[in-house]
Amino acid sequence: MTTRVEALRAWMRQNGLSAYIIPSTDPHMGEYVPDHWKTREWITGFNGSAGTAVVTLTRAALWTDSRYWLAAEEQTAGTPFEVIRCSRNVATAEELKAWILQEPCGQVSANPWTLSRESAKEFEECFRGGDGKRFFTTHIPFDEITDEPLLDASLGMEGALWTDRPPLPASTIEVHPLELAGRMVAEKLVDTRAAIRQNGADALLVCQLDEIAWLLNLRGRDVHCTPVFVSYLVVRQQDAILYVNPSQVTPAVSAYLAANNILQQPYEAIGNDLFAHLPGVEVLQYDPSTTNDALGFAIASNEHIAFREAPSPIPPLRAIKNPVEIEGFREAMLRDGVAMVRFLRYLSETDGLTEISADRKLTSLRAEQPGFRDISFDTIAGYGAHGAIVHYEATPETDIPLEPRGLLLLDSGAQYDCGTTDITRTIPLGPLTDEERRDYTLVLKGHIRLATAVFPEGTTGTQLDVLARYAMWQEHKNYGHGTGHGVGSYLSVHEGPHQFRMNYVPAPLQAGMTVTIEPGIYIAGSHGVRIENTMLIGISPDPSPVREARWFCLEPLTLCPIDTRPIIREMMLADEIDYLNKYHARVREALMPLLHDDEDKAWLTQATTPF
Amino acid sequence: MTTRVEALRAWMRQNGLSAYIIPSTDPHMGEYVPDHWKTREWITGFNGSAGTAVVTLTRAALWTDSRYWLAAEEQTAGTPFEVIRCSRNVATAEELKAWILQEPCGQVSANPWTLSRESAKEFEECFRGGDGKRFFTTHIPFDEITDEPLLDASLGMEGALWTDRPPLPASTIEVHPLELAGRMVAEKLVDTRAAIRQNGADALLVCQLDEIAWLLNLRGRDVHCTPVFVSYLVVRQQDAILYVNPSQVTPAVSAYLAANNILQQPYEAIGNDLFAHLPGVEVLQYDPSTTNDALGFAIASNEHIAFREAPSPIPPLRAIKNPVEIEGFREAMLRDGVAMVRFLRYLSETDGLTEISADRKLTSLRAEQPGFRDISFDTIAGYGAHGAIVHYEATPETDIPLEPRGLLLLDSGAQYDCGTTDITRTIPLGPLTDEERRDYTLVLKGHIRLATAVFPEGTTGTQLDVLARYAMWQEHKNYGHGTGHGVGSYLSVHEGPHQFRMNYVPAPLQAGMTVTIEPGIYIAGSHGVRIENTMLIGISPDPSPVREARWFCLEPLTLCPIDTRPIIREMMLADEIDYLNKYHARVREALMPLLHDDEDKAWLTQATTPF
Repeated sequence: MTTRVEALRAWMRQNGLSAYIIPSTDPHMGEYVPDHWKTREWITGFNGSAGTAVVTLTRAALWTDSRYWLAAEEQTAGTPFEVIRCSRNVATAEELKAWILQEPCGQVSANPWTLSRESAKEFEECFRGGDGKRFFTTHIPFDEITDEPLLDASLGMEGALWTDRPPLPASTIEVHPLELAGRMVAEKLVDTRAAIRQNGADALLVCQLDEIAWLLNLRGRDVHCTPVFVSYLVVRQQDAILYVNPSQVTPAVSAYLAANNILQQPYEAIGNDLFAHLPGVEVLQYDPSTTNDALGFAIASNEHIAFREAPSPIPPLRAIKNPVEIEGFREAMLRDGVAMVRFLRYLSETDGLTEISADRKLTSLRAEQPGFRDISFDTIAGYGAHGAIVHYEATPETDIPLEPRGLLLLDSGAQYDCGTTDITRTIPLGPLTDEERRDYTLVLKGHIRLATAVFPEGTTGTQLDVLARYAMWQEHKNYGHGTGHGVGSYLSVHEGPHQFRMNYVPAPLQAGMTVTIEPGIYIAGSHGVRIENTMLIGISPDPSPVREARWFCLEPLTLCPIDTRPIIREMMLADEIDYLNKYHARVREALMPLLHDDEDKAWLTQATTPF
Repeated sequence: MTTRVEALRAWMRQNGLSAYIIPSTDPHMGEYVPDHWKTREWITGFNGSAGTAVVTLTRAALWTDSRYWLAAEEQTAGTPFEVIRCSRNVATAEELKAWILQEPCGQVSANPWTLSRESAKEFEECFRGGDGKRFFTTHIPFDEITDEPLLDASLGMEGALWTDRPPLPASTIEVHPLELAGRMVAEKLVDTRAAIRQNGADALLVCQLDEIAWLLNLRGRDVHCTPVFVSYLVVRQQDAILYVNPSQVTPAVSAYLAANNILQQPYEAIGNDLFAHLPGVEVLQYDPSTTNDALGFAIASNEHIAFREAPSPIPPLRAIKNPVEIEGFREAMLRDGVAMVRFLRYLSETDGLTEISADRKLTSLRAEQPGFRDISFDTIAGYGAHGAIVHYEATPETDIPLEPRGLLLLDSGAQYDCGTTDITRTIPLGPLTDEERRDYTLVLKGHIRLATAVFPEGTTGTQLDVLARYAMWQEHKNYGHGTGHGVGSYLSVHEGPHQFRMNYVPAPLQAGMTVTIEPGIYIAGSHGVRIENTMLIGISPDPSPVREARWFCLEPLTLCPIDTRPIIREMMLADEIDYLNKYHARVREALMPLLHDDEDKAWLTQATTPF
């Protein structure tokens, strides 16, 4: 690492830079970053998912949040990096500035391909001098002869220094068939074009990989846990241009694209196309929070087109699942439920497991299900005190045996061809303490209170969130994460724009949306509890003949018993017990016909016995 | 009215105006408008509290919301005004524009003294032409010789046309003693100055009358139901200037002002002072939503001072009541509780009452209490179907007899020297329908669920609001108003910045704030239910030794039985019944020693019997 940092400093001197910021993001601002763009890990040695590195000519630091404080310190020991403990998962521009300006400083920069346009503007604003001088701009190399920007993602610091850089992923792209997608690309394009026309735009740049995959009914395997492929898309009024590595496009997909009037260009062509060529476009819309600064710069420099910065129109369109997608979710939940039941029975009768071996068994049972493609995120299998670490991921170093006491928190999910799953169960492995039982019951009460909510059209997740917290708040307990998020249809496990969370999220909840309910309680050094189902927002039938408003309700899609053994019965209300019993009857009815092993059946009967 | 409208049109022609907008607001943007500023009523004949009139050279219209549709149509019959039914209580700039632009139109204007700076900017923006031309500006007369603006509120349309205009109110100002205010003016000024310095301002213009009254510990009787006096205040770093009618200032108050380093200027001097003279001020802060456009214009035109537009710092300071104010509230609630109990007993045994005579009796019983000054808002006494009209105020024309059946919704409050009250009870006058009982129980359940909430520091009213709605939402019932608001300390009955409401209000709830809880159900043509207590936000004692956050809870300040007769027992949870019984025990314990009539005592015993 020391050699790499020294090489970076030499490169910085050549380019007149005095500080260089290396975020954890990639050109598509995705949740999971392919190895090709893990520059922050390459320069620091720290492999956590969140963190920001800064290198000056004399110092180097890495900001990361509490999940990673210890790991980051261990992994950067002996490197030039000092670890700075940060409260959020991304260091703010102000925090970086305060540290950088501890010594005299000239030009601060970053790679424009891996910083969002929005973040770049924030940095520029934050580092602006009193006379309007910009101490921060992203580093775009210019051609010495023509003085044109070299809008090539392979140049810059990584291109110059990272010699053994992993290649770009290049999985084969597949068509996500209409029988599973439920809506034709042509229809989705019509909706998308209508949405941008409301902003006066006639074209849309799409950079988020899961937005492109949804819009084109295509899937790939370029990114961890997420069935997407590396590309950009420009939607115009009459056609669209997909910027993608041609080696990923089979003849069948090529024909499919042509049939949908989608042109192909090489992935690398996007920068120069936006900078200089984009015929048939007058006003290009893009989302500055998901578009990288290189492309934002290219668009702003293009004299032939105007632009509109606006949130992407795709997440709101995608969030409301069509009937075919909803059927797909129901099928995926049956498959996932069978795998979970088989796993839970196995867990109940197997000694000698550890966090990792339990996770492996669960994944292997899921993989036996038809249409299984991948897990949908890295399993969180946290036993005992590890359950209190909200984003815990067991590693060979941290892995511990499961003992016949306490709680195992198990948050996992899968990608099936017909839908994505996300489920958390907290499983008692033996005797529990009173506090463990109490916390389990409070979390379950919160889960059920929110799950039973009926609410009028226009309600947002921020308004409902407290229902999951009311019971635990009575005992001064709380959790620091959101209560729920949308789930993709064989796509990202985290989808917006709606959420259940305390912070204000203006997107209203609508019928057809998926959303998780996952309250928790985490007692550091002791235990963690979280109980999560993926839900579908549906229409609550109106009992009265006078219909003044549309009313919505939530239906659990997830089909898997919720362990009743830790529940303190006296803390439960009659309607809560009723909800649990009805849910279990439904789970039993749905899964029993799909189980073939008598012992699995017996386990399910037992686990769904009325409480 | 026709003559007045014709006179206005002649004046408009003289001034080159083609449309004139007359809002219902006054120069201080207060909730209640003194008669002197009731121009909209003068020109239209319509006396409701909300509405916007527009007169063009050929047409005239009045926008008002559903509360007033019928009344406005009756009251404007035979006038040039057509009533336009509006969904909100103020017509938007867009709505007015759409109507005005039905015919060719030149300059649109309004009185700058009765339109907020914020609204004026909104109108300007909305009416802006394609070439940046402003079709809307407020009408400020200019001196023909010096070309200086005549910043005199007595000029303009009202000055020219309204010959029998009521004078400005001129009540005698009183000092609100420290024994009741609890915090010295000097301390409040220190807090205020610190708050504006954070915005880089060294002076603050205060226009809202209840902000001035709070800051200076002064009270008056210029405004209906609100103990304030007409004035402006400029707070500077070393002193302050009170712009007030000298006839309202007694020698004692004058000495008090001098002792607090508060200079006096005539009320009318504010415009020219802000325009031309304001020594010792470099950066003046004001709130554009509560400062009228005449003063905003004056400040913007003053070359010697810069300005900052920002929300007033006073509501957040005022919202957290000091211990003396809290004691005052407790005392006021005892007095109000005694009056309410005596009234409820009287109501239970008196035949032949009407909505108005019941209200009169209640007010007379309040007036017998020590320190009574006024009611705090116009009583809403809505019997039967009138209870479903959210802002119903009985008039001789609408007044109906109370019959021995159904529900009386009674929302009322008082100003006592030590505190302001706001209480709603819904009282069964005889047999009820099943729906009335069901709605009553749902409202009570919502009230109690919110009242029992415990919540961490930082929580906002938007996040908690749903607790009052959860039960009724299960049955597809809802209410269109907020769930609660702050209450002043012998000041306005509606205070911010915090609220309980579905719309996003970012101000967090803090210990020491007062807030009402007032869910309701309104069935048009049938009945209305609302149950309201004024609450105090307090600190919830932490049971655990590890204090990770501060936790808050709500305590009812209001002391008055909640009728248990309409409750459907099977719908109530054990903790809800427990809350009600404990509340009633507290009410009985607090009020019984203050009752002198045996029949009142017997009534209270009966009304607070455990349910």
